[in-house]
Amino acid sequence: MTLEDVKSLIREIPDFPREGIGFKDITPVLKNKEAFLFSIDMLADAIKDRNVDLIAGPEARGFLFGAPLAYKVGVGFVPVRKPGKLPAETINYEYELEYGMDSLEIHKDAIETGQRVIIVDDLLATGGTIFAAAKLIEELGGIVDCILFLTELTFLNGRKKLEGYDVISLIKF
Amino acid sequence: MTLEDVKSLIREIPDFPREGIGFKDITPVLKNKEAFLFSIDMLADAIKDRNVDLIAGPEARGFLFGAPLAYKVGVGFVPVRKPGKLPAETINYEYELEYGMDSLEIHKDAIETGQRVIIVDDLLATGGTIFAAAKLIEELGGIVDCILFLTELTFLNGRKKLEGYDVISLIKF
Repeated sequence: MTLEDVKSLIREIPDFPREGIGFKDITPVLKNKEAFLFSIDMLADAIKDRNVDLIAGPEARGFLFGAPLAYKVGVGFVPVRKPGKLPAETINYEYELEYGMDSLEIHKDAIETGQRVIIVDDLLATGGTIFAAAKLIEELGGIVDCILFLTELTFLNGRKKLEGYDVISLIKF
Repeated sequence: MTLEDVKSLIREIPDFPREGIGFKDITPVLKNKEAFLFSIDMLADAIKDRNVDLIAGPEARGFLFGAPLAYKVGVGFVPVRKPGKLPAETINYEYELEYGMDSLEIHKDAIETGQRVIIVDDLLATGGTIFAAAKLIEELGGIVDCILFLTELTFLNGRKKLEGYDVISLIKF
């Protein structure tokens, strides 16, 4: 198994979630035992020299890679969720979408001051969601050690949105 | 670390998601390194003698335990999601809630005929969501080997809804 093999399993679904968008579907990677295990191992390898306290991931695909990665590297996991999903006290960060606004939440007690956090998601597109997650972590006093993606759509230039953060992606389209 | 320690970390949030409901919040378990690793190891231990091809989990908290468990036991993971979230061709199962209807979807190509699947979720309440997930897996020709929960609210009698399935839970309230 190589990252090229994993890349070849990612399929593009045309016109999802709306016309004109080619959606990169990672579910064939998840269901393929070898590809799934290899992907988590490669994500872990990419952060092996980092001193990290927590992995955080945005709902819901960030959970699919972030939670196994947290298990693999032996740290806790912090979910960053859509409004109204987290039951205890939260803080909220609002951000602009192409059309309209969206927001994300994190539990107020999810992170302690000075804890080093790696944010994980399946795919870097425009970077808006991940930027919001980073701001929430920082508002709680956490330090964003780096931001880690399985895949990156380089033509959307999400790295510019995340300027100043250490951004790592394993597979580029 | 023991399962009692994990249980003591699960906190009840009153009146969430609505008045009169005491919500069992497992996020303190996730963020606690020892408790998170121990929980996944105990879930893996509970299924160690089973011959399984895939782990499936419902959106979104099922991803938080199901995906690391799939990594730990070395199998692929199949997400079962709310309508409109899975990009490729899906089948849908509609089920009744206390007020109104809800439904879940799975990719048509997520499971091959005869594959043995373990369904994982954080909590067994009334069992409606998990019953829907089981029916979707069976409609694709999969075999539900067992259904595995970190926690169970025994007073809601979800096991009755799941009669005929092998149901395992590690922590009971």
